[in-house]
Amino acid sequence: MDNNSFLPPKGFRDFKPEEALLRKKVISVLEKVFLQYGFEPIETPTLEYASTLMGKYGEEADKLLYLFTDQGDRQVGLNYDLTVPTARFLSRFQDIPKPFKRYQIQPSYRAENPQKGRYRQFVQCDIDIIGNTSPMADAEIVAVIDTALTLLKVPGFKIKINSRTLLNQLAENVGIAQSDRATFFQTIDKADKLEPVDLDKELDKKGLGTSLYTKQVLPLLEKIKADFDQTKLLPDKYLEETFTHIRSLGVPEDHIEFSPHIVRGLDYYTGPIFETVVTEPKIGSVTGGGRYDHLIKSLGGPDLPAVGTTLGLDRLCDVLIHMGQTQTDQNTSVLVTVLDQSLLSKYQNLVQTIRNAGINAQVYLNPNDKLDKQLKFADKKNIPYVLIMGSNEISTNSVTIKNLNTKEQKIINIADLIPTLLHETNPKI
Amino acid sequence: MDNNSFLPPKGFRDFKPEEALLRKKVISVLEKVFLQYGFEPIETPTLEYASTLMGKYGEEADKLLYLFTDQGDRQVGLNYDLTVPTARFLSRFQDIPKPFKRYQIQPSYRAENPQKGRYRQFVQCDIDIIGNTSPMADAEIVAVIDTALTLLKVPGFKIKINSRTLLNQLAENVGIAQSDRATFFQTIDKADKLEPVDLDKELDKKGLGTSLYTKQVLPLLEKIKADFDQTKLLPDKYLEETFTHIRSLGVPEDHIEFSPHIVRGLDYYTGPIFETVVTEPKIGSVTGGGRYDHLIKSLGGPDLPAVGTTLGLDRLCDVLIHMGQTQTDQNTSVLVTVLDQSLLSKYQNLVQTIRNAGINAQVYLNPNDKLDKQLKFADKKNIPYVLIMGSNEISTNSVTIKNLNTKEQKIINIADLIPTLLHETNPKI
Repeated sequence: MDNNSFLPPKGFRDFKPEEALLRKKVISVLEKVFLQYGFEPIETPTLEYASTLMGKYGEEADKLLYLFTDQGDRQVGLNYDLTVPTARFLSRFQDIPKPFKRYQIQPSYRAENPQKGRYRQFVQCDIDIIGNTSPMADAEIVAVIDTALTLLKVPGFKIKINSRTLLNQLAENVGIAQSDRATFFQTIDKADKLEPVDLDKELDKKGLGTSLYTKQVLPLLEKIKADFDQTKLLPDKYLEETFTHIRSLGVPEDHIEFSPHIVRGLDYYTGPIFETVVTEPKIGSVTGGGRYDHLIKSLGGPDLPAVGTTLGLDRLCDVLIHMGQTQTDQNTSVLVTVLDQSLLSKYQNLVQTIRNAGINAQVYLNPNDKLDKQLKFADKKNIPYVLIMGSNEISTNSVTIKNLNTKEQKIINIADLIPTLLHETNPKI
Repeated sequence: MDNNSFLPPKGFRDFKPEEALLRKKVISVLEKVFLQYGFEPIETPTLEYASTLMGKYGEEADKLLYLFTDQGDRQVGLNYDLTVPTARFLSRFQDIPKPFKRYQIQPSYRAENPQKGRYRQFVQCDIDIIGNTSPMADAEIVAVIDTALTLLKVPGFKIKINSRTLLNQLAENVGIAQSDRATFFQTIDKADKLEPVDLDKELDKKGLGTSLYTKQVLPLLEKIKADFDQTKLLPDKYLEETFTHIRSLGVPEDHIEFSPHIVRGLDYYTGPIFETVVTEPKIGSVTGGGRYDHLIKSLGGPDLPAVGTTLGLDRLCDVLIHMGQTQTDQNTSVLVTVLDQSLLSKYQNLVQTIRNAGINAQVYLNPNDKLDKQLKFADKKNIPYVLIMGSNEISTNSVTIKNLNTKEQKIINIADLIPTLLHETNPKI
């Protein structure tokens, strides 16, 4: 029951408790993994100077910036991504030891046309290893993605891995001039969606050659893949070593895939590239990243090589909702009802004892309401356990516990209450 | 070493890892407590329609709004607080069961003159019980503050409690007209800072009476306080019951204080009011709140009574930094060094084993660097434990562990590594 006259601006969203809880749960799992791998958080503000934001990703991107003049006549704007603010941050704090493994989880803002899965405010979860050029770093990014998605129980995910070096070798081998490479890469990136003959048509239409895909590109892709499967060797030594390190970090073979045709849209990548796809639901990649050794400098930061990835919070939540894995262990588990107003302090003692045991609990706050109404409240709020205590229970040191899911009700000794609740409300994710 | 040409806009801040970690730690403790008490999170966007934001807190507040026109010619602005967006949210989702115990932790934006402790972007941690008029709810807000500050180990905090009802009775008793009450309250609110004679002077200057404070107000305040200390009775039954519930919820007597002179600046409070002060450092209150039964409606929301509080993230962090309680358990605890490049995969196995045990660890990512440089990196990053493993250690199934704080170094069996690290890196907060 939505009242439309109270909507936020178009493309912006409110999150009700169940959605907000899921988002927080996903973020907390990601942060735990980032920290375990030695990444450290930074925060940058929502507002940046317009001069910091503009001209960084081309004219089209500039049109999507939320820019305005503030009360002090400063040209400012909302952050478009987290990389531009991070480049400024790295320039400001040049004494931070390198490699700097930073993570940043904050909203970014773009005045895009809103559509399913695309919003004007969206949370990016970025990790980057800055100031290092070892394939160990690239491998670590893949390992973080793997650990995080495994912990989140994202089903059937696959981290697809390729490199710009290989793509350039491929373009070279089939005779694509530097000036045509962006067009060429854009087309072969569609190999997961289009048939080979359609890719031929598209390359032909763009004037890059006849039957180029089926006759030249595809055989090369297949050969490089077959060679890799047999020998683990690659014409790109850096990527080959990255794969070795990925295995040493214990990433299961069936979670990764060498996909020599994937490109990643953004042309700032310089080495390995990664994206993660899921089988269900049908959405784009849930992570995207790679090595970008010149980007930070080109964004106005210091000359530091880097490798990293974004994990898309919205898409990860969409996957978990789709798979029905949205049950968190953070909702209220127990409602202490008010049967007898003269016992209010007993109920309050009881609810504090439960909370102190680490169980989320509330006492019913309208003491005049009938028990029936209190049970209905628990039902509406999906609170699974209800405790009922009258003078009978008090005199026998017991409490009635009602499971609203199973409708079971039993009287237990008060000393058994916490162990029982801890047993029954054990964490779900 | 700050490079000033890369600052964010005036009044906005970057947070380096140690600061960002502390902020996250405080937020995570607060959220844990909020959830334990049955509060649920909501999120509203950064941008709201200007019509939602304007005219809610008066002309002075409107001047502080960051307003602009977006690409679709919509008048929009950044949220000034979390209460106005929540009022809109409550209007939009009227079917949410009441009482609705919501929490919200997000930045708000105000174009204020920046000064120490006041920023243009600041994080508010708000809890509110919406749609309930029982003193049990007011008491619960106080209990949440108490539990949270106790868990955060905020030293010597005191939750000062009063009520608007009592203040109005007091004003009535000393003959202050309705139109003079705001002025009167503003003055007596300074009783913690000014001497009684100075309060007399101020009241006199404002034309409210001669020796009004020492002759009339102070004796009344002292009497009401003395009566309460002896009998626990108050001329405001609602506040009296609130105190009873606060005690039933187990809040220690020395954490609360009935302070009949405190006022809280904002004139929308209608019942009990609370603020929390600390002895050190000398800063304003770290929490502020109370009952505001008509505010949500006056902000354009439904007619719902409410009680709540804000916990100020910045000030809480300032207190913890001042007390030196900034050590978190989230920094990297262990650096696995690279002594021999042929053993890289062993190091990577090792670091994953440590991470899987829940300990934050990294492997050194520049394998060409000498051990000495690796130890310096650990030192600069404040990583306390360094592991060293060469072919000797490998052949004897052992590892050298060096404690950079004590400079102690010992060789232990690899099987003892995780128990040793778990023992030594136990959580600090």
